[in-house]
Amino acid sequence: MKRRQFLSLAPAAGLATLPATFARAHGDAPHALPQAQRRAVGDITVTALSDGGIALGHAPLQGISEDNYAAILTAAHRDPGNFLSGVNAFLVETGDLKVLVDAGTGGAFGPEIDNLPANLAATGIAPADITHLFATHLHPDHVGGAVRDGMAVFPNAELVVHDADRAFWGEPANFTAMPEMMQNFAALAQGVLTAYGDRLRVFEADDEIAPGLTAMPLPGHTPGHSGLMIASGDDSLLIWADIVHVAPVQLARPEVTIGFDVEPALAAATRALLLDRVATDRLMIAGSHIGFPGLATIARAGDGYLAIPAAFDYGAA
Amino acid sequence: MKRRQFLSLAPAAGLATLPATFARAHGDAPHALPQAQRRAVGDITVTALSDGGIALGHAPLQGISEDNYAAILTAAHRDPGNFLSGVNAFLVETGDLKVLVDAGTGGAFGPEIDNLPANLAATGIAPADITHLFATHLHPDHVGGAVRDGMAVFPNAELVVHDADRAFWGEPANFTAMPEMMQNFAALAQGVLTAYGDRLRVFEADDEIAPGLTAMPLPGHTPGHSGLMIASGDDSLLIWADIVHVAPVQLARPEVTIGFDVEPALAAATRALLLDRVATDRLMIAGSHIGFPGLATIARAGDGYLAIPAAFDYGAA
Repeated sequence: MKRRQFLSLAPAAGLATLPATFARAHGDAPHALPQAQRRAVGDITVTALSDGGIALGHAPLQGISEDNYAAILTAAHRDPGNFLSGVNAFLVETGDLKVLVDAGTGGAFGPEIDNLPANLAATGIAPADITHLFATHLHPDHVGGAVRDGMAVFPNAELVVHDADRAFWGEPANFTAMPEMMQNFAALAQGVLTAYGDRLRVFEADDEIAPGLTAMPLPGHTPGHSGLMIASGDDSLLIWADIVHVAPVQLARPEVTIGFDVEPALAAATRALLLDRVATDRLMIAGSHIGFPGLATIARAGDGYLAIPAAFDYGAA
Repeated sequence: MKRRQFLSLAPAAGLATLPATFARAHGDAPHALPQAQRRAVGDITVTALSDGGIALGHAPLQGISEDNYAAILTAAHRDPGNFLSGVNAFLVETGDLKVLVDAGTGGAFGPEIDNLPANLAATGIAPADITHLFATHLHPDHVGGAVRDGMAVFPNAELVVHDADRAFWGEPANFTAMPEMMQNFAALAQGVLTAYGDRLRVFEADDEIAPGLTAMPLPGHTPGHSGLMIASGDDSLLIWADIVHVAPVQLARPEVTIGFDVEPALAAATRALLLDRVATDRLMIAGSHIGFPGLATIARAGDGYLAIPAAFDYGAA
C-alpha cells in the first residue's frame, strides 16, 4: 500500500485533513539513537519499540469540540497544534520465545513513520528470531510491517490474531460498500493473512498465548481488537493496544471515539470498563499510541483519568 | 575515590543507611540499549545521558516523616520501598560547540552507576570532542566523571564553574572540621580543579557561557550551584541541576531539604522561587536527579507542585 493511495482516498473517508499532517520525520542525526526501551516484568523482558510519531489532530475524533480538545491538551502541558501520538510495538522475550506485539506501519503511512525495523535491529533481534507475531488487530499501523512486497517479514513467526479480526478483515465482501480507505485497510490485512496463512493461529477468548502471556479481547475498535496481559511473579503489564489514540483527550473524556473505530459505541464501552479496572488495580499498561515508550499507570482525575508515565527501569535498560 | 571509602565514611556523615542501597546495577542484556535521548531546543540539540539510577531512600531527607515520604510516593504511583532517582548529565550541541553539563559519577558511587561514558559514546561524541564541561556544582555525582586516575577525561574541554563553588570546594581548610565524607567530596572537587587548572573558567552571575547558553546561579545546595538556561528561537529549556533529589517528594513539599545541601534553608528558598517561576512560565526543565530522561514541565498541585514528563521528541531522536 502506497502513501499516495492514502492521500487520494482520505476525502472519501471523510478524513480529508488527516494524511497531510500524518507523518513527522524521524531525525537524521549522524548517530541516530535507538527508540527502544526495556522493562522487566518479573522474568519477562518487554521492549518498547517506536515506529514513529503521528499527528492525528482533532479531525478524526468524535464527540468533542476542537476547543475542548485544545483545552484538554493545554491542561496536560501538550501543544494542541502539534500533538503527536506514538506508534509503538512491543517485543516480549520470555524463555526461548520472542513475541513481537504488532509490527508497525511498514511504510503504509509514508516513509517517515517506518522506524520499527531499525529499532528492533538495535535490540540485537533479527526478524527471523521472532517466534510469534501477536497482532492486536489488523489495522495497517499494526500489521503493515508484517509484510513487505507481499512476503512475510518474520519468516519463522506464527501470526496470532483474534478470530473476529481474521473473519472481519479477511473477507473482501465485507468492504465492497465501504469507503476506499477501508477497502485498502482490508486489502492490507488480507495480504498479511495470506502471507502467514500456513502459520496462522487464531484465538477467541482470553487464551494463553505462551507461558505468562494471555490474550485479552477488547472489542470495539475492531471486532477482534485484543490486548496482551503479561504476568511473571508479582509483576504484570497489559499491552492495551488502541484503547486510546490521543491519550490525554480520551483519558479525560473516555466517551470520545475515533473515526477508525469499527464499532465506536462498543469501543467506548470497552475503554470505560478497562480504565476503571486498570485505575483500580494500578495495573501498568503499554499503549500502541501513547507517546514513546508508551508505558504508564492510570489515575482517576475529575470525571476521567490521566496517565502517569512509568518510572524508567534502570535495571532492565 | 573508591566505593569502599564511601561505605566506611557514611556513618560519620550520619547517612549510615545510604550506601548499602545506593547502587542499582545497569542491566547486562546482550545488546545494551543506550540511555540517551535527544531533544531539539530551537537550533540547539540537548541529549539527556544517564549515568544510572540511585536509591536515596528517606534517610537523607530532612523535614518529612517516613510515613509522609511513603504517602507522597505512593500517590505519585511510585514504590516508596524502591524509588530510584536518576543521575543524568546533558550534552548540549550548538554550532561547533559541544557542552557537556556535568560528567556523572565516574564510579565515585561504585561501578554500578558509571554509565555516562558508554551513553555519551552512543551519541557518536568522543571525550576529546567536548569543548566545555559546565559543572552545575562540584559534587562527586556531577564531576566524578571529569577525572580518571587524576587525569582530565575531557582533554580539550574548558571547565566552567561558578566561582563560589571553586572557592568553597577548592579550599581544603574549609573542610578540616567536617565529616570525612565532606572531606572526600572536597578532595574529589580539588582534583577536578587541578586537572582542569589551565582551562578553568569561572562565572559569578548569569553570564553567557556560549551563544544561547546562560548560567543561572541557584545557590543553596552548594554555594555556587547553578543551572544552565538554553534558548534558541522561541524554545527554551532550563537544566536546573539539583533543585530536587527525590522529585515527587520535594515538588509536593518544596521545603524538604537533603543532607547534601550545604545551606539547606537557602536551597529551599531557591527551590521555592524557581518552582513558582517555572510553573508560571511552563518552562521545560531538565533535572539531574529526575528519572531518566529527566525532562519535564512543572504544574501546581495543591500546596506544591508535580512534574509532567515532557513529550518524546520524535523529530530530534
